[in-house]
Amino acid sequence: MGSTRIAIQDLYPDDFAHCFGCGRHNAHGHQLKSFVDGDDVVARFTPRAEDTALPGFVYGGLIASLIDCHAMATAAAAAERAAGRRIGEGPAPRFVTAALNVTFMKPTPMGGELALRARVTERTDRKAIVEVTLSANDVVTARGNVVAVPMPASMGSTR
Amino acid sequence: MGSTRIAIQDLYPDDFAHCFGCGRHNAHGHQLKSFVDGDDVVARFTPRAEDTALPGFVYGGLIASLIDCHAMATAAAAAERAAGRRIGEGPAPRFVTAALNVTFMKPTPMGGELALRARVTERTDRKAIVEVTLSANDVVTARGNVVAVPMPASMGSTR
Repeated sequence: MGSTRIAIQDLYPDDFAHCFGCGRHNAHGHQLKSFVDGDDVVARFTPRAEDTALPGFVYGGLIASLIDCHAMATAAAAAERAAGRRIGEGPAPRFVTAALNVTFMKPTPMGGELALRARVTERTDRKAIVEVTLSANDVVTARGNVVAVPMPASMGSTR
Repeated sequence: MGSTRIAIQDLYPDDFAHCFGCGRHNAHGHQLKSFVDGDDVVARFTPRAEDTALPGFVYGGLIASLIDCHAMATAAAAAERAAGRRIGEGPAPRFVTAALNVTFMKPTPMGGELALRARVTERTDRKAIVEVTLSANDVVTARGNVVAVPMPASMGSTR
């Protein structure tokens, strides 16, 4: 798949780039940026001071949110690859989450950048299974298993 | 268990009430409030305009976050009941999330209040399984299955 310097989320169509987690048009949101890195998709994110669960530890809701958006970008990249395109050649297809399963392996410490890495492990035209790890200081603290489906017509259309 | 007008999160000890999702000491957070209602625990929450996924629909990361915090409060209430206490008689025990599984049944429309309802379906002193529904306009749009565990000593202690 190669690597790109273009964030997958920056290729979502303008009308579908308002997600609080990763939309470039959401001024209040996290604006997560995910990049193709070989067969994986990677992202980095630094929590704000208020993104806390218990003092000293990152809020699980943020962790789940990052895993979710990162997985959708990973599914989009895999769909482009399956269609014979490279990310950046055109708009990225928009996926939505059917199921989000997060296992919190250990507390995620505050104070540094978090690293996300993901890969599609199963894919049809109707859905993709995405496995995600989230690490702090090179230690995996949470794992995600996420089911992504193409955005249904009831939510709009990217084409 | 009866019903209470005291939010379970308002009974968390001061040192452990900073959660972005539900801590009364987090000025920037959602400050979710969950209340005992018979055998269930309920909460209501109105998303902000920016809490969007795609235009017109609520951000899945927020949905997952609300389900997570609501489940921890539900586990706390069940632990108090198992100890023969009523919520409000003392500080509520603090649980943390071991696993958060959310199924998005259908898109959650923006524009109204969301309702959460939860119940512990399995419980030992070491963990609780909490089933959660999230509804918009009386339609269940997301379901959660959440594994709660007592806050480990490595994260602090409530006693």
